[in-house]
Formats: sequence, C-alpha cells, structure tokens
Amino acid sequence: MKSPKALSMKYMEMKTLEWQLFNVFALESLTEQSRFADHDAVSFRQILDSVKKFADTELYPVIREMDENPARFEDGTVIVHPAVGTTMKTLGEMGLIGAPLDYEVGGLQIPITLFQALNFVIDAANNHVSGYYNLTFGAAELIAVFGNDKLKEDYLQPMLEGKWGGTMCLTEPQAGSSLSDVETVAIPQDDGSYKLKGQKIWISGGEHKHVDNIVHLVLARIPGGGPGTKGISLLVVPRDRLDGTPNDVTCAGDFQKMGQKGYCTTHIIFGENDDCRGYLVGTEHRGLAHMFQMMNGARLAVGRSAAAIATAAYEASLSFAKERPQGRRLMKGGKKDVSQEQTLIINHPDVRRMLLTQKCVSEASLALILQASYYYDMKHSTEGDEAKDYWLLLELLTPVAKTYPSEAGKRSVDLGLQVLGGSGFCNEYILQLYYRDIRIMSIYEGTTGIQSLDLLGRKILAENGRALDLLEQEINKTLDQAAEFPDQVAQLKEHMALNRDVLKSLLPLVMKGEVEMFLSDATVYMELFSNIVIAWLWMKMAVKAQEEGAGTDFLKAKIHAMKFFFQYELTLNHGLAKVLKTPERLTIAEDDEALLAFA
Amino acid sequence: MKSPKALSMKYMEMKTLEWQLFNVFALESLTEQSRFADHDAVSFRQILDSVKKFADTELYPVIREMDENPARFEDGTVIVHPAVGTTMKTLGEMGLIGAPLDYEVGGLQIPITLFQALNFVIDAANNHVSGYYNLTFGAAELIAVFGNDKLKEDYLQPMLEGKWGGTMCLTEPQAGSSLSDVETVAIPQDDGSYKLKGQKIWISGGEHKHVDNIVHLVLARIPGGGPGTKGISLLVVPRDRLDGTPNDVTCAGDFQKMGQKGYCTTHIIFGENDDCRGYLVGTEHRGLAHMFQMMNGARLAVGRSAAAIATAAYEASLSFAKERPQGRRLMKGGKKDVSQEQTLIINHPDVRRMLLTQKCVSEASLALILQASYYYDMKHSTEGDEAKDYWLLLELLTPVAKTYPSEAGKRSVDLGLQVLGGSGFCNEYILQLYYRDIRIMSIYEGTTGIQSLDLLGRKILAENGRALDLLEQEINKTLDQAAEFPDQVAQLKEHMALNRDVLKSLLPLVMKGEVEMFLSDATVYMELFSNIVIAWLWMKMAVKAQEEGAGTDFLKAKIHAMKFFFQYELTLNHGLAKVLKTPERLTIAEDDEALLAFA
Repeated sequence: MKSPKALSMKYMEMKTLEWQLFNVFALESLTEQSRFADHDAVSFRQILDSVKKFADTELYPVIREMDENPARFEDGTVIVHPAVGTTMKTLGEMGLIGAPLDYEVGGLQIPITLFQALNFVIDAANNHVSGYYNLTFGAAELIAVFGNDKLKEDYLQPMLEGKWGGTMCLTEPQAGSSLSDVETVAIPQDDGSYKLKGQKIWISGGEHKHVDNIVHLVLARIPGGGPGTKGISLLVVPRDRLDGTPNDVTCAGDFQKMGQKGYCTTHIIFGENDDCRGYLVGTEHRGLAHMFQMMNGARLAVGRSAAAIATAAYEASLSFAKERPQGRRLMKGGKKDVSQEQTLIINHPDVRRMLLTQKCVSEASLALILQASYYYDMKHSTEGDEAKDYWLLLELLTPVAKTYPSEAGKRSVDLGLQVLGGSGFCNEYILQLYYRDIRIMSIYEGTTGIQSLDLLGRKILAENGRALDLLEQEINKTLDQAAEFPDQVAQLKEHMALNRDVLKSLLPLVMKGEVEMFLSDATVYMELFSNIVIAWLWMKMAVKAQEEGAGTDFLKAKIHAMKFFFQYELTLNHGLAKVLKTPERLTIAEDDEALLAFA
Repeated sequence: MKSPKALSMKYMEMKTLEWQLFNVFALESLTEQSRFADHDAVSFRQILDSVKKFADTELYPVIREMDENPARFEDGTVIVHPAVGTTMKTLGEMGLIGAPLDYEVGGLQIPITLFQALNFVIDAANNHVSGYYNLTFGAAELIAVFGNDKLKEDYLQPMLEGKWGGTMCLTEPQAGSSLSDVETVAIPQDDGSYKLKGQKIWISGGEHKHVDNIVHLVLARIPGGGPGTKGISLLVVPRDRLDGTPNDVTCAGDFQKMGQKGYCTTHIIFGENDDCRGYLVGTEHRGLAHMFQMMNGARLAVGRSAAAIATAAYEASLSFAKERPQGRRLMKGGKKDVSQEQTLIINHPDVRRMLLTQKCVSEASLALILQASYYYDMKHSTEGDEAKDYWLLLELLTPVAKTYPSEAGKRSVDLGLQVLGGSGFCNEYILQLYYRDIRIMSIYEGTTGIQSLDLLGRKILAENGRALDLLEQEINKTLDQAAEFPDQVAQLKEHMALNRDVLKSLLPLVMKGEVEMFLSDATVYMELFSNIVIAWLWMKMAVKAQEEGAGTDFLKAKIHAMKFFFQYELTLNHGLAKVLKTPERLTIAEDDEALLAFA
C-alpha cells in the first residue's frame, strides 16, 4: 500500500491550465487594453510559475496536517496552522493579495483572469489556506472601491501586505441566508464613528494570531434605514484599533466541521462591553449593494475553489488508475483470460467513464471560471454599451460559475473516490479529504438554491432577457467555427432550442404574478442551463484543439472529452426539460397543508 | 444553536416501517407457510418493539462517541467501543443473531423480511455496530448450510449466542475485487485440517476483545484447483483454537476511514509462523459458489444499511426544517413582506423538493429491501417452479437492492445536509456523520460498477430474460390495481417500453460477442432500471394507501410522494435512455490508445 507521501506533488499539472489561459482564453490579448498594458505574457507566466513553486513547496505538503489538526478555539483565540501565516506573508510580499486592484490603491492591475488562475493553483494545492487571503482581498477591495481616503490610508496597505487579515461578516444566528433579518446595530457617534453591537456566525478567518490585526467588514443597521435589506449599512470594524488597543471585538468560538478543517469558522461578538467602534464604508443604508459588488467576486472564488478541488481529485484518481492492476478486460465473447496478468483499472470501461466525467467536470469548471473572469476583465477595461454587454454576460454566468463547479464538482470527486474503491474511503488516500472539503462549496456565499433563484428569477429575466440573447450569440460564434463537429453542433443547437422551450413554458407564470411557482424548480433549471454553458465551453476547447492541428495526444484528448460531455451529460437535459415542463407543482403547499406531504 | 443532545431520539419513527411491513408487504401472510407457522403478527411486533427499545437506549445514544473515537489498533488487537460487546451479548441472548436460521441449527425460523426490518432499525440508530453481528450471522449461515456436523457442533452455538464473532475474508492486497487473483493457500494435512498462509485486508470486525473468539470464513486455494475463481475453497479459520490456544492468526492493523469509524476494518495475517489451521466448509474448489450464496444476503444487508442511514438523515433534516425559521415565501407578484415573521424553511419550495426527494429515496429503498426479502422468504418456503420464479426475481432485484439505496441514498443524504445549509457541514449536527458513513455503501460487497455488470450481464440475460418477464408481470399486477392514478400508470408503461427499447438496442452486441461494448454503460443502465423498480414500489404503496381510504395525512403523503417520484425522478430516464441508445463507445479504447483520452 502507498503512503500518502508517495502521492505527493501530483495535485496538479500546469498543462491544461496554461493551455486554457493562454490559448483558449488568450490571456495575452488582454494586454491590448490600456488597464493591463504594462503586462505581457512573460510577466504573466513568471507570476504563475512563482505561485506554483510556492504551492508545491509550502502548501500541498501541509494539507494533510491541516486536516488532521483542525483549527481550534483556545483562550479567546483560534489556533491555526502556521502555513496560514506563511501564506499571508509570502503572497503579501509578492504583491499578490490585492494584485487585481488599481495601482493607486496598491494593486498591480493584473487581470482577474490571471488572478483566478493563480488562486486555482493554490486552491488545488491546499484549499484550507486560500480563504484567509482571499477574504482579505475582498475586504480590501470594498475599502478601495467604497471607502473614504482616511479608511484607504489606514487599512489598505497592511491588508495588501498580508500583515492584517480581513473578513466578511454577514450571517447572524437568527437570520442565516435571510439578510433582511440582520439585527446587529451601529449607532452614530459624534466623532463620525459608529458603536457596534451584535453577533455574527460562520466568520471565516475571523480570528488567529498569524496576522497582527483582523479587519471585519460588517453588515449592520444604522437607525433610520427602515426594515429589510434596504436598511443595512457596511462598516469597517477592526479587532484592534489603530493605536493597538482592543476594540471590544471578541471571538466566542470556532465551529468544528466535516471538511476544510484548517480554515477557521468563527463566532464573533461585537460590542459586548459597549465599546466597539466601526467606520462607515460608502453610503449609509446602501451596505448590501456595496457588499454585493464584492459578492460576485466571492461567488466566482467559491466556484474556483470547487473546480480546483475537483481537479486535484481527478489527478489523484487518474494516477491511481494508471498504477493499480485489477481484474481483466472482457475478450470477444465475454470471457476473461485469468492466465494473463491483471490489467490496469484505467482500462475498465466503467472506470474510464468515471475518470472522463471527472475530466469533463473539472476542466470545464476551470474554463467556466476563466470565461466569467474574462468577461469581468473586459467589462472593467471597456466602456459604454460594450462594457454593459460584458457586465450582463458576467452577471448571467456568475451563479452558474458558483454552482456548477460546486455541484458537478461534488459528483466528480465522488466518482474519483469510487475509482479507488475501498482505498478511496481510507484516510491513507487523499480522495476522502477532497470529498469532505468540496462539500461546503454548494453552501458558501449563497446556497445552490439561492444561486438558482438568482439565475432564473433575476439574470434570465433581466433587461428583457438580453443576457441570454448575448450568451446565445457567444455560443453561436463558437458553433460557426465548429464545422469539424457537425453532430455536436446540431446537438447543442437542439439543446439551446430546448432551453427556450422550457422558458416558454415557465414564463407565463411570471406574467400571472405566480413567481413562487415560476421559481419552484429553479434548481432543476440551473442544472439544465449549466449543461448548455458547459457544452459550449467544451466546444470552444475542441475548436481550439482542432485549430491547433489536433496532432498531439493532449489536443486529441480535449476533443474526446468534448464528445464525452455531449454524449453522457448534455443528453441528460432531455429528462430535466421534461421535469421542468410539467405543469404540476408538487413542492408548493397551501399553508394549511404545509406538513401533509411529510406526514 | 442546538446541542446534539436536543436532536436525539429522532433517528427513526416506526410508523412507515410498520406500515410497509404489515400492510404493503403483508408480513403476517408469511405465517401461512409451514416454515413460519409458529409465528404470528403479535410475536413479530414483540420482536420489533424489543429491538427498537434496545436501539433507542443502547445504540443511538453512542453513535457520536463511536464516530469521535474511531476503532484503533493497539498492541496486536483493536480497541472498539463497548457497545459492540453489549450488542453481541444482547442480540445473542434475544436469539436474534441467527434468527432466520432453521430451528435445528439454533435459529428461530423468522422470515428474512422481518429480520431485515429489525436490522433496519438498528442500522438507522447506529450503523457502526450492526456489521459485527451481521457478519457473525453470515459466517454462521455458511457453516449451517455447508459445514459438516462437527463444524456445526463446534462453532454455531457460541456464534449465535454472540460469544464469538464471525468475519468474511475475501479481499487481498494484490487482488481487490478480482477474486480470480486470490493467493492465500490452504495445504491439506493428514488429520483432515488445512494449513493456511496468506493475508487479507479490509476485514470488517476482524479483531477486538468484546467477544471470546473470532471465526474467520476464508477464501483460499487448495492445490489442484486450477487458476481463476474455480480453484478457490472456503475454510473456517478461528483466531483461537477450540482448546483456547492461539491459531497463528494475527491482526496487523486497522484501516482508518472517513466514516463508519466505530466499525473496525482490519488487516489479518494467517500462518505467519506456519501454524494456522483451517477446516473446509462444503466442497473443495467450490468455495466461491458457497460464499456467493451468502453474498446475496450480504448485498441486501448493505442496501439495507444505506436505506437506514438515508432514513435517519431524512428524519433529522425534516425535524430541522420544521423548526428552523428563515426568510419569507414569495407572495403573488414576487414580493416578500419583511414585516412578517420569518417562515419555517420547510415552506420554501426548494427545501420541500429536497425533503421530498429524501422521503422518496429512503422509503422506497426500504420497500425495495423488503420486497427482495419477501421473494427470499417465498423462495425458501415454496417448491418447484414457484420457488424458482421467486428465486429469479430475487436474483434480479439483488444488485438493484444493493445499489439503489447506496447511490440514491448518498444523493439523498447530500440533499439532507443541504437542507441544513451551513449547519449541515458543522459537526454539531449529525448530517455530516451520515454523509460520511453512507459513502462506503456503494463500495462494500461489490462496487456499483460490479453490481451493474451483474444486473445487465447476468441477471437480465439469464434464462432468456425470464426474470425481467416475471418482474414485468409483477409490475403489471400492481398497475391493474392503480385505476386511481391513470397518468402515472401510463407513464410507468411508457418507461417499461423505453427499457425494452434500450435493451433492444444493446442486445445485438451480445449476439456479436461484443460483450465489453454491451456492458460498458452498465452503470447507466442500473440507474435507468432502478428508477423503474422504484416507481413500481411507489405505485404499490400508493395503491395500498388508496385501498385503505387515503383518509389520513399519513396515507395522503404516500400518494403525494409517489407522484413526486414519477415527476422528478422517473422522468429523468428519458435522458438516461438516450445515453444508453447512443452507439458510440467513448469509454472503450484500443490498447495502444488506452491513455490517450486522459493525456
């Protein structure tokens, strides 16, 4: 049996990432935009290489340790693995924590597309450390975009240097995903600051001693804002004040979890002694809108982590399958020749089916993240109608980019564990760790159910469906280049029409005001819609592989995977469409029958 | 936040189990068979009640402890939770370990259907303990059926009394699922015994000190049997000899796992000092056939454990959803009224969809186990053609009864965790434990891939497809009583025809000898076929509910669940059928291209 050590350094090959980044999504072309004009392909590759080296030497080697020694609450603070400190420090020194930000606030103005790629490498190596600096980036970005000069001056530099950590404080015990019910209050003081009182749960990276301070970005109610989400404001609340004294921010515990055990999940109390000060970010009562600007980035980041875990799982399963002999292939007539040596399990069709599913899901999840990021970069480096169209495409893809890698990625890691058979369930192999870690991704930053409501209830309906029109134009552009694959072109066109059919059967409910009925199967719709997006991305990759001559095994394998996805995954939309077109609504109950279905 | 304590005693209500057992499957009617004539409904219920009480007081309260303090190897033995000893002792005293066996070997001749129900209760309470006595039963059954009088006399009584444990030793490190490659040898000795040499891995319940002895049933090669599975024999190999001296059986370790942590998974070495004695069970070189007689029972047992875990997860999710307020329902026009109190999450359509899926999967998985067990009982209490038909039905359903609860159950527990949102991922709630525990079920006793080969490659083809004909007769009998549900009757008929279509497109491959191609998507076929079987069982339950007047919420909910399954799950077969009917075979590679797809 293999020791975990023998499986090391195999979490990720760079070949597919680099090919997607530089060939399929033509990262270099972004340097034609003035925002990115100081960069070039050489500098992009240098950054990528240095991050890969850091991940290889410092992060992947400790993921098992972080899993086996979970973050834990002790004496008012949380003990986490020292790699958290190393990561903050190293990425801070490399200037990478806030690298996509503007020069003037201390960023490097690198494309988000590249930034996602860097983070993908780190997530694949060790998804327990990445949240610490990712949230620091998110918090810094909010300050950079909405904060006044004083806030920027006081907070940005130590955060971007990795000396201070940052968090997002949304969830409260009584509210969960329902931000309308946030109760933390912020009372204006004469000096322009606010006094905070309230508590927040599930605050990732909320407390540890590997940074000098932790800067919380907190949603709270300033009196006068009215009920619901409209009355919510956003405040900066540091754990320690600028003079180093405590700011009445207390850590009350660390939630113990099934996975991502090295990533602390804290319970934070603000103003237990009525002495917690916060500082307004942006406009009073506009806090949720501000937060959601960052939230889209956070959603892409979750999708990216999921894609990265699925990738690491795929590579681990693949190397097992290439090394493990077991059983024999069936010969013509169905016999096995037991006098022959055992075959490698990669030669069994069912194992190949599982591995090809893993390949399809993990590589396309990466492509989806890069595609959405590319739209983000184009939106931020163009203007007017062009920028608006990129924004609509980004908005449409964001819930999908959060959800598909999380949900299909979970299924993919599950298959990856199955490839190993009983070994997959044993701690000696790493698959069980990925299986546990990836499970949180469909919950973080808005569950799959919430993303699906966003997709069908907002993004598809927005601007009279213009985002979908734009996406179909994008897909058709790809199909126009795909003459080599006529069967799959026809299939994708059929499925685009099927999607329109489904919407045609659902939209009358919106007209009638039956919005709950319209949205009741949004999660099923998410699955159908995602499959179309992923089929498009696979076609885009196959077209590129063909354009490059399809002469190498690497390129041939991309075309093979495209065909596999169309045959085994896109095809399932026929069933999903039938579910969605059924007029009965078995999941909606009159109030007096609410519990009947579960009697 | 809730403490785990507050969630206790909610792992299983008896109502659905009892209704299925006594009403849908008419357990009492089995007492008309002479084999079961000494029993009646009262005695059946007494046994069930006493098991439930034992599970409530001794087993459910310790499952968290067993998870948090995994079985561990120490000084040549394995430390397991004392509940293992309590369980062996209590069930032994109650006569339940071997209760389905014949009176003459110490059994109670209870129906397997009842036995599965008892075990279902225990598995739902604590799936970490059940394997210890279940394998003891399996080992005892092999001795009872195939052993000579001496073996029966020496071993059965202490095993059935729970004083000795039993195991099944199949897997070896180099062979995995490929039993053709078993290398453990058994050399005949002058005294009629055999000298064993070899090692076995993943031996569940293989070593601990809460029983006085452990009796291994070992697959090994007696010279002269030829290669492959035909040369394998079955031997009884006790850890300690009858005189109490050691038999050169060594425990070399305990595998640490992601779930079922209280259930030890050992590495056993036989004959390290050339002094390990075994005793032949049944006929030389017929060991695999003997073992597989028991294996069908073991496969049903795995499906039952999965069904039970899915049930416990469903009840936990349901009670959370009934207590947890969050957000508000959408009113006509799509607005929410934030001045209203938050609604319970059970009222959100997406949560109801998840819970109804859990209900459908867990209750139908139980029904499937009971249906297969009923066929088993009828096979063993009838004769001639009648017995043979029951046997064919049992054979056909066994791979499905192993796989559907394991695979759909995994998906069901995943949805159950999602119902809890972030709480589902936290150790404080039990869902994450069920999520980890159920994951092994699609691997134990033949993976999903292996079960699927069995279904399509053996069971569907056997006796010119007679088993499928018989099953369709069974389904049609139910449909004839289902006049109240014309839409669903039509739908199930359509899907039975679709299944025949799929087989028609696949069978020519068998004729041409292209068996590897025929079987390459067997796992996809398993999913399609299972959905038809489950739809039938839901229809059977709906028909019974209707027959009983459908007047209570309990009965109405069964009919609602049936409709839900047809709409949301059976419908997906349209997509699966299209996958299966595609002639291309993307998972089969010529040898020289074996790795190309993964380049």
